[in-house]
Amino acid sequence: MSLFIKDALLDGKTTSILIEQDTIVGIGNDLPMPIDVNVIDASHFAVLPTFANMHTHAAMTLFRGYGDDHPLQEWLNEWIWPAERNLDDEIVYWGTRLACLEMIKSGTTLFNDMYFFPDAAARAVVDSGIRAMIGFTGFDFGDKEGAEKLKKDITEWFDNSKFKVQNSKLLTPVVAPHAPYTVSDSTLKWLSNFAAERDLLYHIHMSETQKEVEDSLLSHGTRPYRHLADLGILEQCGERFIGAHSLHLDNEEINLLGQHHVTVVHNPNSNLKLGSGYRFMYNELRDAGVNVTLGTDGCSSSNNLDMLEATKTMALLQKGWRGDPTAMPAKEALQVASRNGFKATGINAGKIEVGAKADLLLVDLDNIGFIPNNDTLSNYIYAAHSDAINTVICNGQPVMQNRKVKDEATIKEEAKRVVKKLIKK
Amino acid sequence: MSLFIKDALLDGKTTSILIEQDTIVGIGNDLPMPIDVNVIDASHFAVLPTFANMHTHAAMTLFRGYGDDHPLQEWLNEWIWPAERNLDDEIVYWGTRLACLEMIKSGTTLFNDMYFFPDAAARAVVDSGIRAMIGFTGFDFGDKEGAEKLKKDITEWFDNSKFKVQNSKLLTPVVAPHAPYTVSDSTLKWLSNFAAERDLLYHIHMSETQKEVEDSLLSHGTRPYRHLADLGILEQCGERFIGAHSLHLDNEEINLLGQHHVTVVHNPNSNLKLGSGYRFMYNELRDAGVNVTLGTDGCSSSNNLDMLEATKTMALLQKGWRGDPTAMPAKEALQVASRNGFKATGINAGKIEVGAKADLLLVDLDNIGFIPNNDTLSNYIYAAHSDAINTVICNGQPVMQNRKVKDEATIKEEAKRVVKKLIKK
Repeated sequence: MSLFIKDALLDGKTTSILIEQDTIVGIGNDLPMPIDVNVIDASHFAVLPTFANMHTHAAMTLFRGYGDDHPLQEWLNEWIWPAERNLDDEIVYWGTRLACLEMIKSGTTLFNDMYFFPDAAARAVVDSGIRAMIGFTGFDFGDKEGAEKLKKDITEWFDNSKFKVQNSKLLTPVVAPHAPYTVSDSTLKWLSNFAAERDLLYHIHMSETQKEVEDSLLSHGTRPYRHLADLGILEQCGERFIGAHSLHLDNEEINLLGQHHVTVVHNPNSNLKLGSGYRFMYNELRDAGVNVTLGTDGCSSSNNLDMLEATKTMALLQKGWRGDPTAMPAKEALQVASRNGFKATGINAGKIEVGAKADLLLVDLDNIGFIPNNDTLSNYIYAAHSDAINTVICNGQPVMQNRKVKDEATIKEEAKRVVKKLIKK
Repeated sequence: MSLFIKDALLDGKTTSILIEQDTIVGIGNDLPMPIDVNVIDASHFAVLPTFANMHTHAAMTLFRGYGDDHPLQEWLNEWIWPAERNLDDEIVYWGTRLACLEMIKSGTTLFNDMYFFPDAAARAVVDSGIRAMIGFTGFDFGDKEGAEKLKKDITEWFDNSKFKVQNSKLLTPVVAPHAPYTVSDSTLKWLSNFAAERDLLYHIHMSETQKEVEDSLLSHGTRPYRHLADLGILEQCGERFIGAHSLHLDNEEINLLGQHHVTVVHNPNSNLKLGSGYRFMYNELRDAGVNVTLGTDGCSSSNNLDMLEATKTMALLQKGWRGDPTAMPAKEALQVASRNGFKATGINAGKIEVGAKADLLLVDLDNIGFIPNNDTLSNYIYAAHSDAINTVICNGQPVMQNRKVKDEATIKEEAKRVVKKLIKK
């Protein structure tokens, strides 16, 4: 069935949008109306692209608020890691369903996941109806046996995954080594070769803290991104490289990243909350040719998966630390949070255009954040919250209408149940 | 009629709360039930104190999103000031009603207002059922005639205000000179004497930008707070002094502020968005004995009046710029955003205790920000948004239940109507 979005506000003008299958096929006021069509009255709504959450650990929604406000190492050692030993397929499934529910309710239709039990996560995404990059993650901490096991596991998963994530149109499998300080150089390079052979994205934590940079200088004599370049990974991966955080960079690294056209993911709420830093070099990265995207990180470090909130934090933080109210205007912030993320994944979305994938959302202009509506985009980014989002469409299919999402009550109950298996107080 | 809040979650335990008139008179599980009582089933809710928004320009809600992302002087000269010439009583009334509606929906029951047409603002607050400090503001820019007019106007207002704000139990009239760089020293001092004679609060913009500090050093040879101390204003006002922003301070100023036990108001979203700065000296001010409170500023600089969002920004920003995840834990952030504000105003609220004023709110634990509920306070401050707030009670009276606020549709329509008189595009 076709989908006809009638009389929505788009870039300040009222227009209608016709969707066939997964694609926007018409935008205008005199579109031909198909016979078998589902019409959405959007006369009180503005239409905007959905968000791409480019770095998260979805199932960690279950850790929301657990061990907050403690020093980093204490929090990991005494809170998160002991509980993570209890993880299983069922816990990750419901944790990821909860994450997808939260992301749908805040306008996200694509996320880049890095966590354990990827088959369970993939199944949860398919059952939720949105898009994800499912990362197969791991670390070897320089241990040879660990490295062999990781290589064996990842090969097996890509060859034989039970849920055949490779075959879903909404899923993209990704190679996701944890970080240069938890994975040995030889394994990092082996994974880069593996990703190159199979044309896969390569997602990794990079330069999140100043300490990582200092440790890299001590052990390798070079900064983390220079080290990855020396291993040939940046060149080999190029546009398939996604560096999460990428917060502590020098000019040489910024130029390197631009030269190889990589993607980086800013995680402002996580960086602030964990005290990792705040001077994200947005303008410099953009000008160097880097594809800058946005993420929330997992709920154990940023507490929610709300990309609209993250977009506001990102835009305000750029203005704030630069002392410049014109730094990162609303329009550019939304592009980072939406279009640039889809671009990294090779999905033609993050824009409301004929020919683009139908990933879009409708915001309720009766929400108080839009009153008065002097500027719809300013109101969306700077004033409104995600409860203003009424409808979310992913790949041509409505996944939320009137703020109702399929299975919401069940997902919440199951999440409350499985968290008791995970966190045993 | 009494109000009985049944089975709410309070500090991790289920309990009930009895309110008589404007006061919390009982907390426990075996409270005597009065005969004439309104019972609220709070079995899915947690109870928390309401917010005190300690610095705003309420009617500027009408400027939401107007002229965003422009340099400061261009924004003032070409956007805000020309439009402000159109202000009248009716515009300020509906702008303030809209502000009150937004604040109620995000859990605020007290705000400290500094804007024009204070009688209209006062009337809007009374009609909304929440508390406000209504500031009589003004500037003389060193002009003698202007100074005389300001003194005459303020005396007349305090003596004869049409709406007799002095007599409302929910309103506190305040002396609110704009700033040391817009009001002459002699007028600042005259207003300080005026406030002392009548035991009034003294609310003023202080050290919001680095430029102000530099200008003060040039014209007075001292920094702004030192200058106010030299005029005898800090000593004379003491606890009645409320310094908005107070962002650019040196150690001597911090000690001065502590010595006089003044109140300062942090406005993190506004400071970031306008590029004013981000290193708010919370720990230093607290340790010096200053009463630190929180505000949103007006919607023309921070775009919404959501104190829950401001609380999160404040807490994250302290952790971020200090590089310390233990800086400003959730509990302390809420105290700044609530109890400290009420304290500055002399209202016994911002806490859920027998004998305190009944200003409290109920959050819906079925909201996704509270799932799972490993830590209610962490979830409230770091994960949830204000749409989780179901019920708001001010001075013993419900002003929102099930997210419904009196006159909401009318207020929105009237705001949309009067904004056309204000902003003539």
